[in-house]
Formats: sequence, structure tokens, C-alpha cells
Amino acid sequence: MEMNDIFRTPTLPGFSPTGKDGDVVLVSFVRLARNFRQLPFPGRAGFQQLQAVASMAASLQGDLENAFGESFDLIDMNAITPLEREVLAEKHLVSQSFLQNPQYRLVLVSQDRRISVMVNEDDHLRIQGQAPGLDLNTPLEAVSKVDDTVESRQDMAFDEDFGYLTACPTNLGTGLRASVLLHLPGLVYTRNMNNIINISPQLGLAVRGLYGDDREVVGNIFIMSNQLTLGFSEKEIIDNLKSAVTEIIAHERRARKAIELYRKDRLADDVWRAYGILRYARYLSQKEALELISKVRLGMDMHLIDEVDEKCYDGLLIGGRTSFLQNAAGSDNMSGAEVDKLRADMVRRILMAYRAEGRTGA
Amino acid sequence: MEMNDIFRTPTLPGFSPTGKDGDVVLVSFVRLARNFRQLPFPGRAGFQQLQAVASMAASLQGDLENAFGESFDLIDMNAITPLEREVLAEKHLVSQSFLQNPQYRLVLVSQDRRISVMVNEDDHLRIQGQAPGLDLNTPLEAVSKVDDTVESRQDMAFDEDFGYLTACPTNLGTGLRASVLLHLPGLVYTRNMNNIINISPQLGLAVRGLYGDDREVVGNIFIMSNQLTLGFSEKEIIDNLKSAVTEIIAHERRARKAIELYRKDRLADDVWRAYGILRYARYLSQKEALELISKVRLGMDMHLIDEVDEKCYDGLLIGGRTSFLQNAAGSDNMSGAEVDKLRADMVRRILMAYRAEGRTGA
Repeated sequence: MEMNDIFRTPTLPGFSPTGKDGDVVLVSFVRLARNFRQLPFPGRAGFQQLQAVASMAASLQGDLENAFGESFDLIDMNAITPLEREVLAEKHLVSQSFLQNPQYRLVLVSQDRRISVMVNEDDHLRIQGQAPGLDLNTPLEAVSKVDDTVESRQDMAFDEDFGYLTACPTNLGTGLRASVLLHLPGLVYTRNMNNIINISPQLGLAVRGLYGDDREVVGNIFIMSNQLTLGFSEKEIIDNLKSAVTEIIAHERRARKAIELYRKDRLADDVWRAYGILRYARYLSQKEALELISKVRLGMDMHLIDEVDEKCYDGLLIGGRTSFLQNAAGSDNMSGAEVDKLRADMVRRILMAYRAEGRTGA
Repeated sequence: MEMNDIFRTPTLPGFSPTGKDGDVVLVSFVRLARNFRQLPFPGRAGFQQLQAVASMAASLQGDLENAFGESFDLIDMNAITPLEREVLAEKHLVSQSFLQNPQYRLVLVSQDRRISVMVNEDDHLRIQGQAPGLDLNTPLEAVSKVDDTVESRQDMAFDEDFGYLTACPTNLGTGLRASVLLHLPGLVYTRNMNNIINISPQLGLAVRGLYGDDREVVGNIFIMSNQLTLGFSEKEIIDNLKSAVTEIIAHERRARKAIELYRKDRLADDVWRAYGILRYARYLSQKEALELISKVRLGMDMHLIDEVDEKCYDGLLIGGRTSFLQNAAGSDNMSGAEVDKLRADMVRRILMAYRAEGRTGA
């Protein structure tokens, strides 16, 4: 039941639109890279060593449950279907690269889905926490607590000079990566996104579109994260990201204000048309759905649309993903058109479920 | 009040979708051209003669009311605003050419809006009747009854050899023109319309798009009418049109069946998206509105869409016309965008009013 739940419920708890600066920042992530002492990094480990890491990590389940006072699911990536693995990635609980080889790979996921620990990704442990809106402290506290629990049981690979040792040198030191998902339709529409993407490396930050490919960003969602860890404290990393994000939030809001000033009615038209198509289409490609969902979300944030509750958002985003839909339908052998039909069905169902009462849009 | 009604109510009584073959034939028209004896045709008449014609026609109001047992509005084209004149044309109660010079021009309109008599158009009297669906007999009976009423009072220009004399020789004889408005999305989508347009002259018929220009038909609505009158009886003219229309209806239905067979789901997607946009857009151009309305109507006829009652159709068609909207807003000095906004408002209001109860589209 609980296992089904994680694969079949179209929700992303971290994506609640009620977080701080939630009109721009969808979710904040903090991730720690940790390795057990005296065992090689997964990329260089043999099967027995990978198995040893997996066993050590699995034995932490009870400790984590005690520490957090809630249950943790222990998911063996080798014991679930390829579609279920994809769903975990679509839900941001594991990385895409974690899916490639499921052997000896586990993931621990807290019941509230805000903490996940990948075992035998690039590092022995990748401890991730998430929170809605711009809030890096809550996930930092959560992953630190996981780390404390782990370190109270196990010796970790730590060096006096380098700090925590990690498979990739860019993670050396704190092993911390902080990132935020940003919804930036205003900056995209006003053609300011490229400036921000170009200037980010100079600030030690990376920005890229979450969906689409390099040439094309889909759905106006960007992920921004720190690039370097060595030589910086956890606080410095997080403060640096937070101040950059605060700047971007201000830019995004200015862009939205400009749109509101100069073409509010046309924007409302765009937003309502997007809603009308989502509400009634019988086929939706993932790309079109993400673009339309972005417009509707912008419309909700700008109070242009009142017919649907903003709580629909994470459902639309995760419920409309291809693997989630295929997994829910119990088939990984569907045509693109079949998936597009399921997607349209799911989107309509979610919009109906979150229809704001007594509002008509008329 | 009654006068306001004709200019401000977004209805076209002849366009009820309940008529015979109403899935293809929107409305049937019959028109008689008649001229009073001893007065020149309007194109050659002086002001006094035009005034004489107008007076003779106006004096018929009471006779018509007695004959039909319902009131007739007598509208002086010179006493109403340019926008109101345009509304009469948009409602198919007068011809477009009737608007150019309103002086000495009247129109008599029955209370049920199914009979109208233009005075001093190309002929002294143009008597028009309309009925929903494929039904040329009902309007033929109505216009004949008007004609009988007129001829019981006045001598008409009639020649033993030529029959009724008319300003344009193509109307000589019966003075009768029969026409039908056809909704032919199936033939348009399957690219068969050109064949029908090309072959029509050989059958003595003319077909043209009702909206759009020569190069482009908008909204898939066509008007088909007889071209010749001289040498044919009323019955022959009407039977000829009826048999051609019956053919076209069969072709259109076959085209729809083919679409249903090969891409019903995609058509449903088209239809529902069109409905979604009409239902929520904040700006609609006349062209876009007509295209979307055509899709929704097709969807209703093919039972693909159940959320809105088909009775909405004439309201969408007439309520979305530019002059109607401007007249309702009391301004003939609006930007295109302002009209498009009014159009979207009107369309949403009508769709809400005709929302089929308890149906969700989900």
C-alpha cells in the first residue's frame, strides 16, 4: 500500500504553492554527499563492496525512523519495475543517473516524501531534503539530522584538509549541493532569461531548464544550484544561493509587473485559453501540457484566474509525466498518442477535483 | 421595446437546429422579387417615385398583420443608426446592398422574424421567408401569402410572356430565389468542397462561402441558391435546389462518417479544444470565433460534445457578429481589440447560459 502510494499518487509534497516566495520558487532542495570510510566509491567498488554499502545503509532504516518519528520506505531499485524507477525520478526523489543500473541500489524515503537517501549513486549516500518555496534551512536541518544519525553509527570518509571526501571533486568539503526550482515565465516572456543563465557561472551557480533540452526550455521551470563546495561553509553556500535567488525573484516580479502594466488583458486571454485547453483537450503532449500548466500557474499567481485552486499544480506537474501515466495504466508499451490521451484524462480529472467552488470563469 | 428587441437580441429564429436535416442545413430561404405596376424600378426612380413606393408598401403593414395574425415591425432604414442597419443584415433580414443608401428604404419584419419585406432594394419589394433546416415549402407558403396580400391591394408588374418583371433579368419569371445555408465541415476537412463549387453552375446553382472572402471560406458555412428563374416554375426551382441539396447532405454525411471512422478521437480533441477556447478566451476575432463555433457545432451534431445545448448555436453566430456587439455596446467607434473582447464576453455568456445541466465534459 505505502509502496503503491509513492508510485501512484500524483503529488509532490515539496511543490505546495504555499511556501515563501512561492509565486516564483517552487521548491528548495539540499543534498549531502557522504561515503562510508574504508569502502571504495561506488564507481570503483566490486559487487561485494556495493552489497556491503547497501546493507549498511539498509540497517539505518530503523535509526532514521527513531530519529524522525516517522516511517521510512526502503526501496530496492532492483525489485521495482523500470517504470516505477522512472516515477521516483519524475518525483525528484532520485536522480536520473541513479536509474541506469539498479543493482545494489536502494533508496530510503520518509513518509512525508521530503527526505530521500540514495544508496550507491556516485557516492555511498546522497541525502536529500526538500521544502516548498524558498526555504533552504528546513531541508538543511533535515539532511543534517540524517547525517548525524548516520555518523552516530558509522565512520564516514572525512579528511582534515578536504572535509568530506566525495566521488566527484566538485562535491569535496561540505558535500553539500543546494538547489531551487524556479518558475520564471515573466523573465522568459520578456526575453531576459539568457542574461541570467550567462551570468550565473560567475556567481558560482548553474542554471538550466528542468524540462526540454539545451536548445529549448519547456514550461519555464529552471533549476539553480551551487557549483562549488570546497572552501565554502554550508552557510556560505546556502547564503550565496539564497541571495542570487532573491535577486532573480525581484527580476521575475518586475517582469510580471511590466507584463501586467502593458498587456494584462492579453495575458489573461493567454492564461484562460491555456486553462480552457487543459480543461477540455483529449490529447496533450508532455511539452504542450507543461507550457499550458506554466501559463495557468502564472495566471493563478497573478490572480488572473480563479476557477481552479492553486493546489492543483503539483498534481498537474507529476500526474502529467509520461512514466507516471504509463505506470498508473500498468503498461510500458504504449504509443505516444495513447500516453497523450491518458495525460489529457489525468489533467482534466485533476482540474475538476480542484475546481474552486462557486466560481465560473464567465 | 420591440424595435430594441430586433437589434439587441442575439437570436436568429430561422437557425434553430431542430429543422429537417438540421445537422447540415442550417436554414432555408425563399425570396420573391415584386414590383408595382406603373412605377419605375428603384434604380431608375426619382425621389417622389421612391417615396410613392415606400408609402404603398408601408400601407400594407395592417393588411399583413391581418393576414398573418401577428404584428409586423415597419422599420425606416433612414431612421435607424448605421449599426442597427448592419445588425439587420447580420441577421439575414435585409441584404448587404440594401444598407448602402437608406433613403426611402423600409423593411417590414414579422414578429417571429421569419418574414421580411425589403422596400426599394433592387425591386420595389423583396419578400423573404425563412425556416429552420431543409424546408423550402414553409417559406414559399409564407412569401406567397405576403404576395397574395400585396396583389389583393395593388397591381403588380407582370407580363404574359415574361411573368413577373424584375429589375435584374435573372429574376424574371417567378421572381423567386430559393437558397439554403449549409454547414459543411466534413466536405471542407476532406477537401471535397471545390468539386461541389465547380459543378454547381452546370446545375443552375450557385454556391459560395457565407463568411470570409473568395480565397478563404470561414466557418464552413455556404449559401447555395438557384441562378435562373425564367422558364422555370416555382416548383421546378425549388425541386431542383432541394434535390441538389439532398445530394450534398449525403456527401457531407459520408465525409463525417469517414472522419468518424478514421480519426474520431482526434476530431473529439479538436472539438473540445475549440469549446475550451470559446468557453474561456478573453479575446476572439470574428474569424477565429466562426471557426471554433463550426467545430463545436460539428461536435454537437456528431454527439462528441455534451456539455452545451445545441440551442446555443444561433446565439453564438449572431451574438458574435461585429455590428451586433458594437450596437449592444452603444458605440461604433471601437478598436478591433475592444470588439474582440466584447465578442469573447458574449460567447462565454451564451455558452454558460446553454450549459447542459449535470454534464461536466470531464
